[in-house]
Order: sequence, then C-alpha cells, then structure tokens
Amino acid sequence: MPRPIHVALIGQKFMGRAHSNAWHQVGHFFDGPRPVHLHTVAARDQGELIPFAKRWGWDHCSDDWRSLASIDEVELVDVGTPNHLHAEQALTMLAAGKHVACEKPLAGTLADARQMRDAARKAKSSKTFVWFNYRRCPAVALAHQLVRAGKIGSVLHIRAQYLQDWGGPSTPMSWRFKKSLAGSGAHGDLNAHIVDMARFITGDEVHEVHGAVARTFVKERTLEGKRGKSRSDVDDCVLFVASFKGGATASFEATRLACGNQNRNTIEINGTKGSVRFDFEDMNVLHFIGPSDDPRTNGWQRIMCTSAGNHPYADAWWPDAHVIGYEHCFTNMAADIVKVLSRRKPLVPLPDFEDAYQTQRVLEAALVSARERTAIRLSEVK
Amino acid sequence: MPRPIHVALIGQKFMGRAHSNAWHQVGHFFDGPRPVHLHTVAARDQGELIPFAKRWGWDHCSDDWRSLASIDEVELVDVGTPNHLHAEQALTMLAAGKHVACEKPLAGTLADARQMRDAARKAKSSKTFVWFNYRRCPAVALAHQLVRAGKIGSVLHIRAQYLQDWGGPSTPMSWRFKKSLAGSGAHGDLNAHIVDMARFITGDEVHEVHGAVARTFVKERTLEGKRGKSRSDVDDCVLFVASFKGGATASFEATRLACGNQNRNTIEINGTKGSVRFDFEDMNVLHFIGPSDDPRTNGWQRIMCTSAGNHPYADAWWPDAHVIGYEHCFTNMAADIVKVLSRRKPLVPLPDFEDAYQTQRVLEAALVSARERTAIRLSEVK
Amino acid sequence: MPRPIHVALIGQKFMGRAHSNAWHQVGHFFDGPRPVHLHTVAARDQGELIPFAKRWGWDHCSDDWRSLASIDEVELVDVGTPNHLHAEQALTMLAAGKHVACEKPLAGTLADARQMRDAARKAKSSKTFVWFNYRRCPAVALAHQLVRAGKIGSVLHIRAQYLQDWGGPSTPMSWRFKKSLAGSGAHGDLNAHIVDMARFITGDEVHEVHGAVARTFVKERTLEGKRGKSRSDVDDCVLFVASFKGGATASFEATRLACGNQNRNTIEINGTKGSVRFDFEDMNVLHFIGPSDDPRTNGWQRIMCTSAGNHPYADAWWPDAHVIGYEHCFTNMAADIVKVLSRRKPLVPLPDFEDAYQTQRVLEAALVSARERTAIRLSEVK
Amino acid sequence: MPRPIHVALIGQKFMGRAHSNAWHQVGHFFDGPRPVHLHTVAARDQGELIPFAKRWGWDHCSDDWRSLASIDEVELVDVGTPNHLHAEQALTMLAAGKHVACEKPLAGTLADARQMRDAARKAKSSKTFVWFNYRRCPAVALAHQLVRAGKIGSVLHIRAQYLQDWGGPSTPMSWRFKKSLAGSGAHGDLNAHIVDMARFITGDEVHEVHGAVARTFVKERTLEGKRGKSRSDVDDCVLFVASFKGGATASFEATRLACGNQNRNTIEINGTKGSVRFDFEDMNVLHFIGPSDDPRTNGWQRIMCTSAGNHPYADAWWPDAHVIGYEHCFTNMAADIVKVLSRRKPLVPLPDFEDAYQTQRVLEAALVSARERTAIRLSEVK
Repeated sequence: MPRPIHVALIGQKFMGRAHSNAWHQVGHFFDGPRPVHLHTVAARDQGELIPFAKRWGWDHCSDDWRSLASIDEVELVDVGTPNHLHAEQALTMLAAGKHVACEKPLAGTLADARQMRDAARKAKSSKTFVWFNYRRCPAVALAHQLVRAGKIGSVLHIRAQYLQDWGGPSTPMSWRFKKSLAGSGAHGDLNAHIVDMARFITGDEVHEVHGAVARTFVKERTLEGKRGKSRSDVDDCVLFVASFKGGATASFEATRLACGNQNRNTIEINGTKGSVRFDFEDMNVLHFIGPSDDPRTNGWQRIMCTSAGNHPYADAWWPDAHVIGYEHCFTNMAADIVKVLSRRKPLVPLPDFEDAYQTQRVLEAALVSARERTAIRLSEVK
Repeated sequence: MPRPIHVALIGQKFMGRAHSNAWHQVGHFFDGPRPVHLHTVAARDQGELIPFAKRWGWDHCSDDWRSLASIDEVELVDVGTPNHLHAEQALTMLAAGKHVACEKPLAGTLADARQMRDAARKAKSSKTFVWFNYRRCPAVALAHQLVRAGKIGSVLHIRAQYLQDWGGPSTPMSWRFKKSLAGSGAHGDLNAHIVDMARFITGDEVHEVHGAVARTFVKERTLEGKRGKSRSDVDDCVLFVASFKGGATASFEATRLACGNQNRNTIEINGTKGSVRFDFEDMNVLHFIGPSDDPRTNGWQRIMCTSAGNHPYADAWWPDAHVIGYEHCFTNMAADIVKVLSRRKPLVPLPDFEDAYQTQRVLEAALVSARERTAIRLSEVK
Repeated sequence: MPRPIHVALIGQKFMGRAHSNAWHQVGHFFDGPRPVHLHTVAARDQGELIPFAKRWGWDHCSDDWRSLASIDEVELVDVGTPNHLHAEQALTMLAAGKHVACEKPLAGTLADARQMRDAARKAKSSKTFVWFNYRRCPAVALAHQLVRAGKIGSVLHIRAQYLQDWGGPSTPMSWRFKKSLAGSGAHGDLNAHIVDMARFITGDEVHEVHGAVARTFVKERTLEGKRGKSRSDVDDCVLFVASFKGGATASFEATRLACGNQNRNTIEINGTKGSVRFDFEDMNVLHFIGPSDDPRTNGWQRIMCTSAGNHPYADAWWPDAHVIGYEHCFTNMAADIVKVLSRRKPLVPLPDFEDAYQTQRVLEAALVSARERTAIRLSEVK
Repeated sequence: MPRPIHVALIGQKFMGRAHSNAWHQVGHFFDGPRPVHLHTVAARDQGELIPFAKRWGWDHCSDDWRSLASIDEVELVDVGTPNHLHAEQALTMLAAGKHVACEKPLAGTLADARQMRDAARKAKSSKTFVWFNYRRCPAVALAHQLVRAGKIGSVLHIRAQYLQDWGGPSTPMSWRFKKSLAGSGAHGDLNAHIVDMARFITGDEVHEVHGAVARTFVKERTLEGKRGKSRSDVDDCVLFVASFKGGATASFEATRLACGNQNRNTIEINGTKGSVRFDFEDMNVLHFIGPSDDPRTNGWQRIMCTSAGNHPYADAWWPDAHVIGYEHCFTNMAADIVKVLSRRKPLVPLPDFEDAYQTQRVLEAALVSARERTAIRLSEVK
C-alpha cells in the first residue's frame, strides 16, 4: 500500500471548492500511484470554514495558514487564495520544504512572481505547480499533442480570446476589482490562461508585444450590503498583438464585458499544414484540419475528445461522448500532480513556477506596451 | 442534525460507478435536507467488488443482493443491474419496505414492468424512482419548464433520436446483445430515454404508434477472450412514428450503428408558438425559439443553461458557462431523491415505476407494430 | 457556333422566376455546348405576364400554353405550374415532340404521374426532366458521389426531414392548400424532395413503408382580399418510416408547422464505414465522417463544397467559400439539361419522368399506409 | 419610362465578372427607379475581352479604358482593375463628369486615395461609390441597423478577422503579391473590408492604432507558366489593435495563411446591452444577443436574415431561408447605386471616396505602427 499524499489547502471560496473536489475525485476516477488524503484546510473566516471542511471531508481546519508549514505529515500545500497572497504563502511553504500548488496567475505582480520563481529554483526538493487547469481539458491536451507532433506544420498564427460578460456595472465590488489584491483585472485572470495555453500548445515563447490596449470601462462599483461606491482600479479588458520566437503572429484578448460570452475561452492556431481550434463553451470538442488524402472531403474535423485510448484523460471518465465538465480539468491535473509526486511523468507537461513566470512576463510586457504606447521585446522584461 | 439516508447499491459496473459518484457528490454540491450515507454495495464478483467499495467509500459490501433487504438501516436500495434482474430485485426490496431507485429501462419485458408497477402501487410506504437521468440535464429540465409553461404553445411535433455508433461488428458479445438479459437492444437502452424525455417535456402521452421498423444488422458477435461467435438476438435499431393524445405527431429512433454519432440524444419539439431543441453532445445548451417583440431579431436562441437562479440545478455547480458533464445529471437526480425522501418536492417531476411503466408500454407498442406491420393504439397495450 | 436551345416556359410565379433566372444565368457561368435562348413564356394573367417577360428577357409571351406546342423553334418546354396541370401540359408537349422539364412533384396524383411516365416512355425522341433542384446543390451532389463511391460503406440508416414554418393559421388560402390543385400539402411539396434526395444519394429504392401519419392542423384559412374562410384539405405534415431494398431503415418527415425551421431540408445517411449529413440552411456545407488513419483526429468533417476541381459545379462560380445560394441549384440543373440536349452526360444523374415516378410511388405508399394504418410494400403500389 | 443608366466597366477578371453579374441581375430582382444598360466594357486583353463582353451582354468593348470618358451616353464608370490603376482611372472619369464606382480598397497607397478623395470633393456633380460589397450582405446591413438603433447599447469591443488560406507557397505569383500593383497584400485586400464593416456597423471612427504586426511568410513565388521565382513584397498577414473615438477597443486581423479558413470574414461587436456576431462563411445568418424579458431564455439568437419585410434586401430575393450567396451583395449594392443615381436614398449608407479614404487612413496607420513599433493616433495620418 503506497504512502498517501497528505494535502493542505489554503482558501475556501470558488477555487477552494474546485480544488477540494479535485482532490476528492482523483481517487475515484484515476488509478494513481498514491492515494490522496485531504488533511487540513485553512482560511480566515471560521464561520464558513468549519462547514466547508466538513462538507468536503477535510480532516482538520485552521484559521492560520502559516500553521500548515509545521504539520510534518502535509506534503503538498495548495494555495487557492487571491493573487496578492500567493507569494508570501508559497514562499513560506517552500521554505518549510513543502511542495506547492498555486492558483493562477502565479502572482499579482511580476516582482512577486519573480520572487516565487527564485524561491522555487532554490527549493530543490520541492515541486511547484500552477493551476492552469485548461491545459488538462482533454481537447487542449490533444491540441498540444497534435501541434507538438507536427500535425499542423510550423505555427504561423495564434488567435486567443477569453471573453466573459459578468463584469458589467451592476456587478458589485470584490477583490477581483482591486489592484492591490488582484494585481490586474481580466488580464491576470483571463489573459493568463490563454497566454499559458498558447505557450503550452505551441511550445514556443513570445518574442515581442507589438502593441496593447487596456481599458477600465466601469470605474466605480457598488459595495455589497453597504451604501456608497468604491473605485475599480483594474482593467476590464486588455488586448494585445504579439509575435513568437518561431515567427508566428499572435493576438490575445481578455474581457469581462463581452455580452453573450460567458466563458468563451478560445484559441485557434494556424500552421503551414493545418489548424486547431478550441472553444471552452463546447469544451469536449477540438476542431482540427490537416493535410488530407482526398481534397473532396477535406474540412475541419469536429473531434469529440472522449475516446478512451485515443484522447488524453478520456479513459478515466465515461464512454464516448458522455461528456465531462469544467471541474474535470482540475481532477485531471490533480492526477498528474499525484504522478509527479510519485516520480512519474505527467500525461502532458505541468506548469511549475518557472513556467508560469514566463507567462507573467508576457502579461507584464502587454501592460508596459499599453502604458508606454510602444512595442516591447520580451528580452526587455525581466 | 437530520437523520442520514443510508443507501445500498446493487451493481458495480458502468451504472454502479455513475450512481456511486452521484451519492458521493450530492452532499458536496447540494444543501440537501438530509445527508446521504453509502452503506453497502452488493454484486456477484467479489474480486472486483472489494476494491470498488473501497474506491467509492461504501462501508460494506456483499455478494448476496438479497441480504440488503434485511439491513434495517438501509432506507433506499439502488438497483443498477442488467434489465432482467430489475423486477426480482425491486420486488424483493419493496416487499422489505425499502424505497427503490431502479436503472432504466424499468424492465426488459412489459410483464416484468407491469409486475413492478403493481408492486409499487401496493407498497404504499415505499417511494420508487427510475434513473431517467437526462430529465435532470439542466437543458432538458428547462425545456420541461418552458413547454409546460406554454412558452411554445400547443405541441405539434416531437422529433427524437438517440444515435450511438459503438455497436458495429467489431464490438464483442455482452449482456446488452442478449434478449434474455437485456430485453431489447437499442430500443430499451436508448428509445426508453427519448420516449421518457418526450413524455416529461410535453406532459402528454402517446396515443398511437403508426408504424415501426426494427433491425438486427449484426447477427453474430465474437466472444471476449474466447474463440467462436455468439448470436445477437436484440435489435440494433428501432424507429417508429407515433402520435400523442394532444394531437402531436412524433418520431423516435434509436440505433447503435450511426457512424459519427457517439451519444447524440436529441429532441426537438415544435409548438404553435415556438420550439425547443436539445442535443446531449452539447448538453449545457438548450435551443429555443418563441414569439418575439421584434421580428427583425427573431431566431433560435442558444441558451447556456448554467445561470444560477435562472436554470434548474445551475446554482449547485459553477459560475456561468463553466459547464457540467454527463454524471452531473445523476447527481442532480440524487439531490431530488433526497428531497423526496425528506418529504419535499423535487425540482422537476421524478419518474416512479408507474411513470416508467407508461414508457415501457410505448416501447412494447413499437415492437408489436414492427412485428405485426400495423398501427396500434396504446389503449391496446396493457 | 452551335445551335441555340430555344426554351419556352409555362408559369410566372415563384418557380417561373427561379427557372427564368436559371435559363439566364446558365450562359453567364457555364461554358455549355449550346447557348440557351429564352423564347416564350406562357401564363394566364396577361397583366402580370407582360412585365414578367420583359423583366426576364423572354422574347415572346402568350396567354395560351397550348400554343407553345406549335412553335417549331421551341425545343424544350419548361412546366412551372401548380401540380394538377403538370400531366396535361407535359403530355401535350411530349405529343408535340418537345423535350419537357417539369417542376416537382411530378404530379399531384399517382394516376397523373403514371400517365406522364407512360407518355415519356412512348415519346422516345423526347427527353424529360423533373426539377428536383436540390440534387444539384453541390453538397448534395458531393454526398451522392461519396456514397456511390463506397466512402461510407453499406447504407444502414437514412434520416430525412424537410421542415418549414410558414403554414400557420395566419397564412391565407392558396392553391397549395387545395387537394384538387396541389394533390397534397407538405407531402408532395417537401417529402417529394427528400425522398428524391435519399434515392439519389444512395442509389437504392424504398422497399416498404412501415407506417405513416398525416395531419391537417389548420383546417380553415382566410381568403386573401376577401371575407370568409375556406377549407384546407391537404396535409400540414406527413411523416413515415420505411426501409430500402438494400436493408437500410429510413424516416421522412415533411411539415410546414415546425416553428423556427424555415427551410430546413436535412438528410443524414449512416453507413457501415461512415456518414454524410446535409442541412440546406447551411447549403454550401456537407458534413462527412469516414474511416480515419488516425483515431485521435477522427470526427465529422465540415466540407465547404466550393472548391473548383474538387466539388461538383464549384468551378462555375466563385473562389472558395464565396458561397452560393438557393437559385444556383436551378442554374446548375439548367447546365446539365443543356448538356443532355447536346448528347453529353450530366455531372450527376438527372431525374426524368421515370425516375420521378418512383418517388411518387413512395409518396403514395406513405399516404396509403397512413390511411389504412398498416405497413405496405412498394410492390403493392403501381 | 425612366431613362436607363448606361454603365461602362473597366476590368474583366474576378471583379469584372462579379460586377457584370450585378448590373445584369439588378433589373431582374429589384424594382429600381431606372433600368441599367450594360454599355461598354474595357480591358487590355482583347482576346479575352470579346468573349467576355458577349457572354455578359455588354454592347461594346474597348481596349482603351480612356475612351470611356468620351462616351456621352455613359453615366457611370465602374472601375474593377488592380489597385494601382484606381486613381488614374477614377480621376480621368471624374474629370469627364462621370459617376465612378471603384473596387476596394480605394487605392494601393494613401497618396492615391487622398488624390481620389480630393477629386471626388471637387467633382460636385459626380457621385462616387466604393465596392465594399459586404455592407450589403443582409446580415451585415441588419447589424448596422440594430447597432445604430441602440439595440446593443454603447459599443465596447470590436473583434474582426478576415481569414483566408489560399496564399501558401504553392500559389504562384500574381499582381496581388506585388506592392507596386496591389499596394499591400492581405491588408488592403482583407483588412480593408473589415475596417469598413466596423466603421459601417458602429458609425464610429478609429482614434488610435495601439500596435500592429505585418509578416511576409512566403517571400518568393513561382511564375505561372515560366521557370524561376519572383519576390513577393506584400504582407501575407497584418494584425493590429486599435481604439475608436467612442472608446471601444478593436482588433483586426487579415491573413491568407489561415489553414481551413477559406473566406472567414468575421466580426463581433459587444456593447453595454448586447452583441452582434457575423461570419461570412454562414453569410445568411446574424447572431444577436440583447436585453431579454426572460433571463431563463436569454441567449444568442441565430437570425436567418431572409425575411422579406424584416431584413434588408430580403424582399428582392427568395422565400425565407432560401438563402442567397456571395454575388448577391454586389447586386444589392448595384440596386442602391441605381437609387442614388435616381436621387433616392440607399437602403443603408453607401461608401463614397470620402468614406473609403477614412478606411485607407486606418490601414496606413496600421502599417506605420507595425514599421515604427509604436502606437499612432489617426489624427497623425493625413
């Protein structure tokens, strides 16, 4: 009987819930090399925390996240808090010899991200992970496999958009609209995902940001349960054009104000021989076109990525076209983390702090470009 | 602290897994009136059963399903076995005063189904349920709400197809291809679902089957792990035209040989004022068209059925367009069963044995019509 | 300089317009073996006819369709009138030695259709054509080529629907709602098309109609420009299940009351190796799935049927994905008629009276089956 | 009987054909205030020109385009030549008092475009038109009407892409790949269209280009019918981010190397209350979402823009969902030109040289931004 991985979690909101579910379900659906044990969850609000821990089967709970560092049994600390807390929490846990899985974006600021990257480099016995969960959407993982195998030839164009519509003026203030807590708005929340996806699928890195625009359309928001308004100082949208080292052109757009697009995380990549296209709102499907033996029937292929044996992660779940949903990406990632902590290889590459730091540099370059009204090479962003 | 519902399950294959997951997840995602406890799982193959029970957190396991009848604590027995076993198992459990949740179709034969219906009528203190899980796909539940609220007017046409493609000649023999075990092939497996969906969404009953055709294209199948072949004596497809009491015309088609359609469970309903359309392969979406204030913009509306407060079951899960998958329908159903066993109303009607018996009569009428080459009124099928 | 084909047309309504356009455009877009000359158009309403003739460039017009028989120059008479007139007009023109192109359905009644078939057999020097225009939608012609070439293997299922929604109670009376003029309602108008398409694509014939239902939901209609109402005695919808000689099962549905479906002429054909799917509302596209070298990328292929050299009729029109529309099917057919009248082969088979008579027998079988509540073999319908 | 408009055309290639068809069909499908007469077509290659003129019914043909200036009867000269010829031809015809309809882009260079704009301003009795044909795709015209009527509120985001895939290395050299003849590559050919569409639909003007990238991936091309290669000195793709005066952010991308996208001219516009989305590959459809009375059914509406009385240009063509194609946009535009030349208003605004010059300035700003690696305000581009 292999030794269980004792996990501790910080945070009990949206991501706390998604991660708890992943740690729970991984043992139900995957034949992993080691079982997972939900050891302790930490969060500030004890009133909410106790029922949360009970509901999700965490053995213990704590209102002091620092206390996790001293629980010997805990092997992995999972950081699911707002962005401005990532650095301090991750650094503390790395210093205590824990493995750390951190929510994305790596941090709210490039300085924080750099510190985390440096700490991860030093902590040689610790593994780090960043929850870019969409890499483990089977359709995205398949896109990675196909593109890296040369099925679309050399990459010429990347076209990525992450469009949501919940950020209108009637949405009240929250930490997500405060720069001091979130670092940025749609940019760090959504562009982080699609920059990571573009890097993951192509295996290439951004060379230059050619131009960018950021906008805050809703400048003030109501306070929940209180009178008055509060200033939103993050972007509602950021879009930018870039090019990759291999020569491909790219565009990225993140917004919370695209009416009718609730979670439209899309990417299309065109190569010299073919293309792939993904839209999270139909997340079980990858569209692909490649060279064809018969030009009469050549066309975009709608691949239902649910075929055990053929598609990543599909054998863990249900029969063909018995589709999976959002949270399954987290469970798939938990399964790969378990593998790595058992000295096995993940099914597709897992982002660590080093990797996520590269994404953070791209985000920073876009902000600088927008502010300074100029193109900027990534080599200028440290 | 409300008294937990102790559940026992018979079966540990595909449906055993789906049901185990549902009983597990219901407490994570729903604030139900009573907690659920996974008491005992019973199945024949002990070698498989023990790891299954451990993986899914069943407290006990048994190789004798009859033993469940005498476990006082167990309130609900969940029957997830092949169709020919449903009747005996359900009758035994009803006789023992248990509530019974049975996989669909209700039974392999109409005679079995009738017996079950009769037993359920007699067992007044027992509740019965049939796992027509697609009723609790949010898009289907919403279709039910819209149609029953008159949003499409009077129903004129129902057009339902359940197309799969796994049943080709290379698929080996299994209980699903044996009439003595399954009762029928695609008909009981797939038409059962869409006949139930049509009845559920419209609230109307089939009046007449006008004609039907059943075919067995693959007459022999290889034996898994053995030499030789075995005869398949169930249908590969059944299609029929019908009309409903309210006057609507209907067509139903089930097949396991529709290349490229892996789990295409679709229904379209046209009424005097509008229409609804559903396709399980894009299960989070309902297409709807109704009367419009502005004829310039009238068109099919693609409703992403994930909006908490607006769409059935959506508040249990994730933010908008963070889509759910196949197994969530089972969890939604488990939540409604918990409600009913707590004397509350389900969010949308739950099928019981009485209700499922009506679906079984329609299936029987189609088989008779195909065999006798004649139209048949439902009133002739007892 | 080849001798021009002098065409005469009877009818100046919807089909008169579509046919006039086709005869006009064929010379613009096709390099045909013979030019086409628009000689004479005949219709009853002279007030409308003269401007119609002028607009469309017909050299002459006549209020007496019989007069066309005696114009020596006229080689082809094109019959674009209501269904009850087809037989008399076609017979007269065949007797006069003309080639005849007749609107579909061949006739309003099977008796008329048989007479036309017989007359065509006798008139050995005359060619006959029936305007089943959808055969020459490039996507449908491509489906024919692929299926006949064995790309989907043996045909197992045919699933065809022609759904429109213009026939609600607010639509006033017209000849289309009168049995004496139209023969039938949606059945002859729409099922005729999809039965022809199924026969065309598969090359197979209906063996048996297993059951059918016909309904007239709107029994009375207002008179345009007058008080009072008039009885509609045609079907609003007819649906039926059938099987083909080769063993395939089939369903056909035609309705004018399917809210939201304005011209949804769809067919899907599943074979042992693959499938094709067509929907006229996206008429430039054929969906195809076949055997794949790489199971990871296998999926429905969206073929944009506009590639010159690869897709039927595409080289006559515009560059790739510069899509064509409804009337182009007629022009494509005119081009093939010109070929046949020049002793060349059409690109894909053209339906003649003999061929269209087979479609008419299927329609008749469905009506008999609906009326007599029984299955009926095609061999019983003469 | 109103006086006919005598039209002369310069050019007999792709656009010569599309324009000839439009002038032909306008009288068939529209009840215009004046008839159109195809007077003279001029082009260099007489061997091709004579059969072209005959095929399309041009009364005369000429190998000297300048001669058109002196034909008194000719009222409108239609310029359908490569971009570097537009200025001289248009100026000559304006000087001769002709109305001028010019293919897009207005010119190959901003200097040429400015000259044309200035000449048009001076020639007060002449009307000018630019063939931005997609404005008259009914779905695009409807988008214009809806957005200008406030149906989506204030515009926040514009997202436009024109993706083609014919420009790979196997495509031989042509004028389209020569800067001296075409001015630019995908930029002037495709971005011109989508910049015009964005301006047309929103009624707003670009304020700033924030950044741009242009690429020539295929630097040499084979010569048709000859040995050797020739340098391509135009862009294969240009993408840029911009903002509009009203505050909206925008992105534009044009490429000829997007495998699988043959003519994917798409635009999505998000406003404070709703959105519109268009894709030319499904050109009869506009997707729209606006405020809803019932949040349960709110979703993108698929509008089939073929409803006479409700949708622009629909009453000229066929019944609902009897869809139209590419060339119909030109015919719709011809109908509006005829109206303007009859002192009537076009159905939606027609672009003249002044208007097209604004589009040309945006294209220029993007090129400058790409070259100088900086943001640029439109006010800096004269």
